[in-house]
Amino acid sequence: MRLVVVGASGRMGRMLIQAVAGTEGCTLSGAIEREGSPALGQDAGLLAGLSPLGVPVTDDPLPAFAEADGVLDFTAPAATVFYAELAAQARIVHVVGTTGLSPDDFSKLKAAAFHARIVQSGNMSLGVNLLAGLVRKVAATLGDEYDIEILEMHHRHKVDAPSGTALLLGEAAAQGRGVALAERKVAVRDGHTGPREPGTIGFATLRGGSVVGEHSVIFAGAGERIELTHLASDRGLFAAGAVKAALWAQSREPGFYGMDDVLGL
Amino acid sequence: MRLVVVGASGRMGRMLIQAVAGTEGCTLSGAIEREGSPALGQDAGLLAGLSPLGVPVTDDPLPAFAEADGVLDFTAPAATVFYAELAAQARIVHVVGTTGLSPDDFSKLKAAAFHARIVQSGNMSLGVNLLAGLVRKVAATLGDEYDIEILEMHHRHKVDAPSGTALLLGEAAAQGRGVALAERKVAVRDGHTGPREPGTIGFATLRGGSVVGEHSVIFAGAGERIELTHLASDRGLFAAGAVKAALWAQSREPGFYGMDDVLGL
Amino acid sequence: MRLVVVGASGRMGRMLIQAVAGTEGCTLSGAIEREGSPALGQDAGLLAGLSPLGVPVTDDPLPAFAEADGVLDFTAPAATVFYAELAAQARIVHVVGTTGLSPDDFSKLKAAAFHARIVQSGNMSLGVNLLAGLVRKVAATLGDEYDIEILEMHHRHKVDAPSGTALLLGEAAAQGRGVALAERKVAVRDGHTGPREPGTIGFATLRGGSVVGEHSVIFAGAGERIELTHLASDRGLFAAGAVKAALWAQSREPGFYGMDDVLGL
Amino acid sequence: MRLVVVGASGRMGRMLIQAVAGTEGCTLSGAIEREGSPALGQDAGLLAGLSPLGVPVTDDPLPAFAEADGVLDFTAPAATVFYAELAAQARIVHVVGTTGLSPDDFSKLKAAAFHARIVQSGNMSLGVNLLAGLVRKVAATLGDEYDIEILEMHHRHKVDAPSGTALLLGEAAAQGRGVALAERKVAVRDGHTGPREPGTIGFATLRGGSVVGEHSVIFAGAGERIELTHLASDRGLFAAGAVKAALWAQSREPGFYGMDDVLGL
Repeated sequence: MRLVVVGASGRMGRMLIQAVAGTEGCTLSGAIEREGSPALGQDAGLLAGLSPLGVPVTDDPLPAFAEADGVLDFTAPAATVFYAELAAQARIVHVVGTTGLSPDDFSKLKAAAFHARIVQSGNMSLGVNLLAGLVRKVAATLGDEYDIEILEMHHRHKVDAPSGTALLLGEAAAQGRGVALAERKVAVRDGHTGPREPGTIGFATLRGGSVVGEHSVIFAGAGERIELTHLASDRGLFAAGAVKAALWAQSREPGFYGMDDVLGL
Repeated sequence: MRLVVVGASGRMGRMLIQAVAGTEGCTLSGAIEREGSPALGQDAGLLAGLSPLGVPVTDDPLPAFAEADGVLDFTAPAATVFYAELAAQARIVHVVGTTGLSPDDFSKLKAAAFHARIVQSGNMSLGVNLLAGLVRKVAATLGDEYDIEILEMHHRHKVDAPSGTALLLGEAAAQGRGVALAERKVAVRDGHTGPREPGTIGFATLRGGSVVGEHSVIFAGAGERIELTHLASDRGLFAAGAVKAALWAQSREPGFYGMDDVLGL
Repeated sequence: MRLVVVGASGRMGRMLIQAVAGTEGCTLSGAIEREGSPALGQDAGLLAGLSPLGVPVTDDPLPAFAEADGVLDFTAPAATVFYAELAAQARIVHVVGTTGLSPDDFSKLKAAAFHARIVQSGNMSLGVNLLAGLVRKVAATLGDEYDIEILEMHHRHKVDAPSGTALLLGEAAAQGRGVALAERKVAVRDGHTGPREPGTIGFATLRGGSVVGEHSVIFAGAGERIELTHLASDRGLFAAGAVKAALWAQSREPGFYGMDDVLGL
Repeated sequence: MRLVVVGASGRMGRMLIQAVAGTEGCTLSGAIEREGSPALGQDAGLLAGLSPLGVPVTDDPLPAFAEADGVLDFTAPAATVFYAELAAQARIVHVVGTTGLSPDDFSKLKAAAFHARIVQSGNMSLGVNLLAGLVRKVAATLGDEYDIEILEMHHRHKVDAPSGTALLLGEAAAQGRGVALAERKVAVRDGHTGPREPGTIGFATLRGGSVVGEHSVIFAGAGERIELTHLASDRGLFAAGAVKAALWAQSREPGFYGMDDVLGL
């Protein structure tokens, strides 16, 4: 499978190049960066700390998409929407790990998915997607007398809170309970808060050091707690998941898929 | 429902008396201790830190069982086997929270269950039994490239290791993988151990302070971990589960049941 | 030592009655509640789940303070300031576990401490006060390249965030670094936060179930973390600490003391 | 400072090469492997995933030591004792991160330290050595009514248990209490153990996945626990500590030093 990496010189971009180069049956066929990037013209392999791959970084996605079977994209919302249209025109697979997408962005991706095979997830790891299923089940089993809290920690460079994965787990909990997360979410506690409101889903955020990503969903009842935790220690996990998603989607119909489809959960 | 508590003056016995007295629809109809116990003759309510209940502790289970609908039993293996026969003769419910039962003890309980309704579990809490189901599912989903480890901590008075609950969770993991726990269990690591053998299930035990009971099942893969944890902070949890089990079993056919039956998991 | 408990019928009040009754050398000499409380006239021992102590709950602190050597106070800021004046007039020990005190409240307590021996702490446990000393030391040793985060979890009834103990630990960290907590504290993270600002001290709050109190101070650097944690599982810990503080203060000069003085840390 | 890495082609060896190459003021002057190693003749930089450094791997330490200022050594006990003699003859710094050293090995290293500057530690990270100091202090402050337990988790390839770092932390706890670790250590709990013996120091070991190294020292009392934890997520931490130790030792007198000397703890 010939794959293009967009945002090729970023931290996740280089991880994706490594994952493509290291997966049997996959070839890096293109590496894209935005106009003006200092990485333009460099060899994508060297950029990723590998031997040269003979693929220079360019700022022109069109010819790259035309000769590819899929594109791996952990960039930013506006870029992702733009790439989704190109990928739909080229009828190739589009794997989207971008976070912070708005409802409007989602609408555009879903429109593109009439023609493209899009796999989108806030987290591409097997572990987190498996955990989301467990959270849904436990939330459906336990009543409101178990308070749901979601804790996450990430490195000091992360710019949004709660993390996309924390929100994904919160959605799973809300689905399990048959409620809307937007109406139950409590992300701020500071000063006189009053007692915890029953049925809410709380979020707490830690930031520091080089932590790749840690998430816990806590079900706290009278005298007992259940805690479901995922610890990621290697960003390569997410890149490997993205390549897996691309391979899976290759033989699928156009549509908008999630990692639970890919992983068969 | 009229319930007898055996081992009435022990730590769990007193918890069971409290739970029976505090549950609508339940009455304490008997309290049994072994011959020679200093608690004989005392009022069971006072013993449990409650108002008097008008039920003196005796060492004669026969008349107590004859007038009861069920018996709650967190004693020791030999006593439990003895009580199981009496409960079968009296055709009453027998809830067994005793730990350390041998395969031979289990055979005897199962024989008694032709006539009695026995509910047996290494842990009567909703949380742990729910967790066991999750462990089974995750172990079935993840391959051997995820190492399974079980960690538990209990108070300094606990006399056996790993805990009955840790073994229950280990059984769930082994079932999920389709293997026999006895062949995969590693409970000792000391000195030159060599690298971890794939497919084994490791146990680690902490003891200290007044910890009621904490269990984690860890699935450790390359670059990620899933950890499923239960924290019990109140022993009353187990007593409440035992009463719930007795109420549930009252309307069942004779048989050998577990807490997953009671909880409908 | 003759001790009065104020706020006698509350959760902490009853714990304090138990602790006084259970400590050799201490006697409960008075139990105070606010005007109109349904507990007025009841025996303080019965209220606390003990045998009768012959001490009825009253709403008049004056005669009680006049015949006592000390008062134990886990009430609310306004009440505590009022009791501090009475205790100063009676020249008795005043142990203050009340949280949520304003700078103005502190000034009034310190004024009262010219005549009274006041011991005040956001947390009366040995463990937390020992931890605060460790936090100060680690914060002084590690530079700003280690991010400091403070995580706490409490039961669903708690009405303020972050907890008094979390703030106490934050103060210890700030002192260790030689900065003012007020200028470094980050208690809210929601939405687009931007990267973590170096030198800040973050707080994250979890609420749920019946958790007595858990606090972690995290020092997160590149590739490593140090986490210092305190887990309280029994509220009696704080009551026992308050009685210990009263006994310690009995032979001291008037002044404003903390638990580190009591514990000799 | 000219540094030689022994065991150059192992996992830690390559980390050390990276750390030397990446530290200003340091040069890799030699890279040693045992006779017959397939790495002999290769460029040490390439071996470590860097650009070529012009230093081929050899199996002859003598000329390498003669032209160096120090040697970094995370090999095995027998090799380390051998290198210590060479380093003493060459009067260069010897940094020893080797684990599993016997009392006899220590005697030999200390003999060599009459002529060489040896820095030896079971763990070269700032965090763990800082933690050891805290453990010593807490163990000295808290009495035997707080049970001490040490928990560690490492990747599936680790061949010994408990880890060298867990033992280092256990030694710190024992020193704090003024006891000998050898007489208090409990590393095995399986079957009928009886209640925890007061004053013992327990060890529990988890193995799985790719965990770099996690250690917790738990002080468990009645109703409260203090837990002091170190989490390492990057092996480069230990290599950086070794280089730091070499630079520090360069200007010291011959002697046997630890990382607390280097870090000024």
